[in-house]
Amino acid sequence: MNARLRHLSRRTALMGERAPTFYDDPLIAVRAEGVWIYDEAGRKHLDAYNNVPHVGHSHPAVTEAVHQQLRRLNVHSRYVSPVVLDYLERLLALFDDPIEQAALTASGSEANDLALRMAMVATGRTGIIALDAAYHGNTALTAAVSPRRTPVGGYPANVRLVPSPDNLNPLGGKPEAQPEAFAEGVRTAIRDLEAAGHGCAAMILCPIFANEGLQSQPPGFLDAAAKALQDADALLICDEVQAGFGRTGTHMWGHRAIGVAPDIVTLGKPMGNGWPIAGVVTSREVMEAFQREHRHFSTFAATPPAAAAGTAVLDVMEREDLMGNARRTGHHLRARLAALPHESIAQVRAAGLFVGVDLVRDGMNAGTIAREVVEGCRRRGVLIGRGGRDDHILKIRPPMPFNSGNADFVAAALDEALTEAGA
Amino acid sequence: MNARLRHLSRRTALMGERAPTFYDDPLIAVRAEGVWIYDEAGRKHLDAYNNVPHVGHSHPAVTEAVHQQLRRLNVHSRYVSPVVLDYLERLLALFDDPIEQAALTASGSEANDLALRMAMVATGRTGIIALDAAYHGNTALTAAVSPRRTPVGGYPANVRLVPSPDNLNPLGGKPEAQPEAFAEGVRTAIRDLEAAGHGCAAMILCPIFANEGLQSQPPGFLDAAAKALQDADALLICDEVQAGFGRTGTHMWGHRAIGVAPDIVTLGKPMGNGWPIAGVVTSREVMEAFQREHRHFSTFAATPPAAAAGTAVLDVMEREDLMGNARRTGHHLRARLAALPHESIAQVRAAGLFVGVDLVRDGMNAGTIAREVVEGCRRRGVLIGRGGRDDHILKIRPPMPFNSGNADFVAAALDEALTEAGA
Repeated sequence: MNARLRHLSRRTALMGERAPTFYDDPLIAVRAEGVWIYDEAGRKHLDAYNNVPHVGHSHPAVTEAVHQQLRRLNVHSRYVSPVVLDYLERLLALFDDPIEQAALTASGSEANDLALRMAMVATGRTGIIALDAAYHGNTALTAAVSPRRTPVGGYPANVRLVPSPDNLNPLGGKPEAQPEAFAEGVRTAIRDLEAAGHGCAAMILCPIFANEGLQSQPPGFLDAAAKALQDADALLICDEVQAGFGRTGTHMWGHRAIGVAPDIVTLGKPMGNGWPIAGVVTSREVMEAFQREHRHFSTFAATPPAAAAGTAVLDVMEREDLMGNARRTGHHLRARLAALPHESIAQVRAAGLFVGVDLVRDGMNAGTIAREVVEGCRRRGVLIGRGGRDDHILKIRPPMPFNSGNADFVAAALDEALTEAGA
Repeated sequence: MNARLRHLSRRTALMGERAPTFYDDPLIAVRAEGVWIYDEAGRKHLDAYNNVPHVGHSHPAVTEAVHQQLRRLNVHSRYVSPVVLDYLERLLALFDDPIEQAALTASGSEANDLALRMAMVATGRTGIIALDAAYHGNTALTAAVSPRRTPVGGYPANVRLVPSPDNLNPLGGKPEAQPEAFAEGVRTAIRDLEAAGHGCAAMILCPIFANEGLQSQPPGFLDAAAKALQDADALLICDEVQAGFGRTGTHMWGHRAIGVAPDIVTLGKPMGNGWPIAGVVTSREVMEAFQREHRHFSTFAATPPAAAAGTAVLDVMEREDLMGNARRTGHHLRARLAALPHESIAQVRAAGLFVGVDLVRDGMNAGTIAREVVEGCRRRGVLIGRGGRDDHILKIRPPMPFNSGNADFVAAALDEALTEAGA
């Protein structure tokens, strides 16, 4: 058996036959740097998918910051660490009213689980509204608001799913009608939760609708829905795990780009460039209401190395102007993809360095073609993914130091892969 | 305002007024090494409480392993990383039948949340049995089996709590009666869950009953309860977050010390010496049943640096014979504490480097005295905690390189603190 097959066979034996991998021919990764991942044969692959290595794989500034902190101190937050306080101060300064306090966690799933529990305690209600193609995590509670797979034990009675905005097939039939149609879905869900006796605690959504296939919307889109929540005294939770930390190129947070003021924001993947750090930021009122009854504590969260990683990420973002780079490279990438001459490309959407490409054939969402195209890109050394309701939307979401040459490489690979797929 | 007050005031502003700390006078930590934590004034405090820095704070072998791996590669497990496979192989070799596969997570809470969901899927039932003084995590689902605080939304209908064993006031009135009395609680809970239509999916417990106040039990204790679960086709989940990785001094896992073969084991705190790594290990059958429907994936879990940290922990444990040290130092510490002449000490229990000291006055569990003693030790530069039903049991659970001199220091501080508390 060659080395490659041996790795795959060991993986099956150790992690189970269906432990998910990317690609028919999974990538055996041994090294990564910047926007490149190297396999065992030394071949390099352009990472046009991963948002955890936000400032680039193995960025020396983050690695060194973590290393130095690990040499000094790594304790949990029942001890007071000035390093952690410095980071929280810097992080919270990046938010607007009413957000002013933070509870860190070790994963985005934990952050969303905590945010939902905070909303339930703060409102005294249990009803939750989520979008019908969302993903918010893998705990029991967050899986219940990640409806693409049936949660263990079935969909709970206190969750209502509302139709996601869709830029190719807008709610209400046309783009102008979409905000009101979306808000009407929210109002119906609120009424329904109230009638069922749960009441409405919160709506949770990704402000750039990333897992819905990057259905990002213009400023004002959420105004009517947010008002409906306010009228019901319910909270708005923005999940910034994908949208945050400058990804959109124009704003630090997705909720700013769409112009809404959430009560709770959750953070995750890019926050520590690979150190497992995530968290919830919220108002003093929500935090107080929660802590009065529950005093959240998480052993692995809010540690000095987590803070060191988080601080280094913010430093590098500023020093290398990565938000500006996301805007510029994102524009370039979008233009290159929009110019590709393939009839199956129904729409190219971009929010900075996050691009969604709808593939449609004969009026049907083309999930099978998208699959072939992702595999075709992988064979050409370009790593992308896909998402959306029918897994028909190509998802391009590279580390933030992506440059225009990298974007050109993606466009060229995609062009070839689309041709190969007869698309 | 002096520096100390400024830190505490910033902490309140940033994390909320009730974000939990240890001690009336919280420790401002700036450096830690081995079994010592240093504060801002350079004063050193003996860490007799923390199990995350399992092989010692800032252990250079772990720090260096993480550093080198961070320089090379940090990707999630949808790519195949030989480093991760090597670690899983080594980890799984430490378990007996039927355990042979692993799903890593980023925290013990996530591990227990996943284990409970796996049990529900594998059995097709939703009922869970937990102990009435347990703690298994801070997600919505794990909080429901951590009954010392009311879960958000109240205790769910599918959870039954059974009385914990207690070595000072044994179930059934005497030590010999305790195993059968415990098993009878389990049988009643199973019947009750079945009658309510939930059925019984699993019982979850810590095999050294750590949060119950270290109510560790002799081999065979769980046999009757385990048989009741087997008869109901329900699973046994052992939470080894506190008991595991040689803590007891005699066995790598708490479930081996008590002589039971769990279907699922969860791992956490000590696993990566501070890198956030945790996980579930189980049989191929349970993993397959779960993956057929759910394909667990966790971005921050099963990464190369997590594996590097985990591997380094196992290396150091072997090289420094830390399990042997836990046994030897644990015996010494226990003997020193048992010899202390204080009438409020009702019992001293030890399982390697995990010691519980019941404080009782006038026949009542003495939570207030325990509180004073913990504070008295902290003033003397010795960090311990407390737990148990009435927070009356001193909890001493230091990093594994604790030596007999450290143990003597704990005993001396405890002696003084007990005297000071009039105990």
